[in-house]
Amino acid sequence: MIDPRVASGLRDLPPAVMIPRERMLAVFRQTFAGFGFVPIETPHIERMEVLTGKGAGSEEVLRQIFEVTNKGGTPGELALRFDLTVPLARFIAKHVDELGVPFKRYAIGSVFRGERPAKGRFREFVQCDFDTVGTTSHVADAETIQVIHAALSQAQLPKFTIAINERSILHGVLLAVDLDNEAALRAIRVLDKLGKIGREGVLNELQGKGREGAESQALLDEARAQRVLDFVEEGRQQDDPFVWALHQDHITISSEAQAGITALRQIVEDAIDGGVPKDTLKIDFGLARGLDYYTGVVFETVVDGWERFGSVCSGGRYDNLASLYTSRKLPGVGASIGLDRLLALMDEAGWLKGTSTMAPVLVVNFPGSMPAIALKIASRLRAVGIGSEVYPDAIAIGKQLGYGSNRGHRLAVIVGPDEERDGVFNLRNLTTRQEQKGIPWADLETTVQEALAKLREAAT
Amino acid sequence: MIDPRVASGLRDLPPAVMIPRERMLAVFRQTFAGFGFVPIETPHIERMEVLTGKGAGSEEVLRQIFEVTNKGGTPGELALRFDLTVPLARFIAKHVDELGVPFKRYAIGSVFRGERPAKGRFREFVQCDFDTVGTTSHVADAETIQVIHAALSQAQLPKFTIAINERSILHGVLLAVDLDNEAALRAIRVLDKLGKIGREGVLNELQGKGREGAESQALLDEARAQRVLDFVEEGRQQDDPFVWALHQDHITISSEAQAGITALRQIVEDAIDGGVPKDTLKIDFGLARGLDYYTGVVFETVVDGWERFGSVCSGGRYDNLASLYTSRKLPGVGASIGLDRLLALMDEAGWLKGTSTMAPVLVVNFPGSMPAIALKIASRLRAVGIGSEVYPDAIAIGKQLGYGSNRGHRLAVIVGPDEERDGVFNLRNLTTRQEQKGIPWADLETTVQEALAKLREAAT
Repeated sequence: MIDPRVASGLRDLPPAVMIPRERMLAVFRQTFAGFGFVPIETPHIERMEVLTGKGAGSEEVLRQIFEVTNKGGTPGELALRFDLTVPLARFIAKHVDELGVPFKRYAIGSVFRGERPAKGRFREFVQCDFDTVGTTSHVADAETIQVIHAALSQAQLPKFTIAINERSILHGVLLAVDLDNEAALRAIRVLDKLGKIGREGVLNELQGKGREGAESQALLDEARAQRVLDFVEEGRQQDDPFVWALHQDHITISSEAQAGITALRQIVEDAIDGGVPKDTLKIDFGLARGLDYYTGVVFETVVDGWERFGSVCSGGRYDNLASLYTSRKLPGVGASIGLDRLLALMDEAGWLKGTSTMAPVLVVNFPGSMPAIALKIASRLRAVGIGSEVYPDAIAIGKQLGYGSNRGHRLAVIVGPDEERDGVFNLRNLTTRQEQKGIPWADLETTVQEALAKLREAAT
Repeated sequence: MIDPRVASGLRDLPPAVMIPRERMLAVFRQTFAGFGFVPIETPHIERMEVLTGKGAGSEEVLRQIFEVTNKGGTPGELALRFDLTVPLARFIAKHVDELGVPFKRYAIGSVFRGERPAKGRFREFVQCDFDTVGTTSHVADAETIQVIHAALSQAQLPKFTIAINERSILHGVLLAVDLDNEAALRAIRVLDKLGKIGREGVLNELQGKGREGAESQALLDEARAQRVLDFVEEGRQQDDPFVWALHQDHITISSEAQAGITALRQIVEDAIDGGVPKDTLKIDFGLARGLDYYTGVVFETVVDGWERFGSVCSGGRYDNLASLYTSRKLPGVGASIGLDRLLALMDEAGWLKGTSTMAPVLVVNFPGSMPAIALKIASRLRAVGIGSEVYPDAIAIGKQLGYGSNRGHRLAVIVGPDEERDGVFNLRNLTTRQEQKGIPWADLETTVQEALAKLREAAT
């Protein structure tokens, strides 16, 4: 016998996990489509050169790459994608002439990273990305916020907060305390750790006194580091951070930071006009999303009360998506929903409805009756949009009903020889075990529809 | 610059391909769910041993396997799955105790084969499988036919034919002409090629006179080979092949073949009772689906008039799904829809509606107006379920409208400074270029809904 285990760091997704997952993906697809985003798909396998080209991925990610070889193929030529951004860049570079811009795409798919396996961390996981490529318009920035809000609201998340910043604000402030561009980018990467290592940790790192593996260059003296941190932390406390910021010294002396404030304000106002509730948004002048890749607005989303799960949807604006593959400059903005993280969070919070079936009705296969009756009943119910499963084997009714309650069917339709003779059926509520008896066949659809409507009402 | 091409034998799927594809997958998911099938997902990467275990795949498929290695991993340990059946068998073997039987699962996902690239043949393609595992009931066999019929009908295929057989009929007939079991299985594999190599070719092969690479053993003399072929070919001409078959010599002397006829007749009757139109079904006593894996009913589906594309949905009943991984005997029945083949066929037949957007409305971003107006309009339309895209840049109106007609938006909503002042909007049909002017904002939702309803009516 061969051991039926999955490889290390991988996992099977059984129906109880897949059903809420598929429901959520359907919501995301519908949301993306509603905003005019269109789906694309790229192969799971890419040419190694495309994936590892200078700037395509962080060093850490490249160390985790899965190589792919077929018999007769040359080792080292192919690999599994580690995200959906590099494939998007390659796709756009290849197809931009036929597709035109602006190009709004979404992509949902597995990506692969050979990370050390750990609880809740897998070597294959799904990303849900959407991007608007080929425009510098702030309307696209605002719309990205709208999409995050719409997708997560429709996924039944009770309350979440989208943190927003414009990287040029932080950049301008750092130039205003006399850093050069390169040092400012380094300082931004340090400041981005504020949530993780705290004020003290960031202060130390900015002065080159961080722990091993951290920024080692002294970027700012203590006084200037404190001023920058004050700006970030005080900004978070403001009712109107824009008005406040425009009166701060760091800002008044930096035209870049001022322009950043103006842009961010416009984006936020547009998002609110587009239907995002104001209290869902939080301005955070310290937010930077590590990577230098982002050049404008940046976002992170946490579920209120579940901050420890980290961001469930992040993204931002970039200047040039596909510079590795084309000389054409392609700015854009986008975000990525961490499906697996979101589902893990919702599961732990008890927000996922447990069920192992999507068909609310089980039609019993009565021992001694012809299965044709059950098949016809199920077929009639499906014709009016009610999912109906016929139990395949004519075993004891009790066992069939037990199967139904275990899987999460709500109702069972039962026709035994007596009911068959009288042209009627019995309808059993699999939760309460109450049974309505002797309902005429002609009333099948309406009776079942009413019973399901009542169950739905009772559930809300 | 890095060349943005995909690896050999792989491909990008642009929106024009993905939109009908996603629509079709949504139909399949809904159909499967409506019959009580539930989704599962297994990793794209499996342990090599699981994939290559004796009996897991045909030799040809195993030659085409893609090996996967990460840095620090041992070469030869992991590979990409080449179908969804082997992963299902492994999954069931591992999880059957917690899941219970009958277990009805569907799975949709990419599989990988390093085939020589050729027109219309790719190294990554999608399979859509559904199976009922853990039952020998003919109700599950009949239901498999119902699902094939429902899925393809709802995918808007005009007319297709599901060919059906019970392998034991052919097996019994071959025993009746004095073959032993092993020779009968070989003969079945030869007979299965009838469609491809014709009667003459099959006759030769059965006599051991086939071309190179074919069956070389002489299995039957010419007279007996002719009798078997007569049975198969005459059976196809019968109005009631069951009644006819029960009077054929080969059948009357074989209890196995008789039982096969009875079973097949029951399955067909049940499928018809379950709503499958009789003229969609075709009994074909020669159909065998090559692989010895199948042991009972087998199916193949061709689209009428497009037979040269081959079967778009095939499957059958098997005795023992997971014998490589568990001693528990797990019989079942299932089928697989060839999504890529089906879409290629529909594309060639002109049955796919060409569009590059799923949002019917484009909201123009009027130069000189605040984008807030466009964002609010789109937001209101989405709230009533109408997909609406806002053009991100305030460029010349003509260019925005051109973008809309190119992408397949149906209507454009236009609000310039005059309309803004008067609280009205203009609604432009992007196909006819007709424009309704000066509609009050309050009538936005109803006007757009009515216009879209009219367009849908006109299209049917």
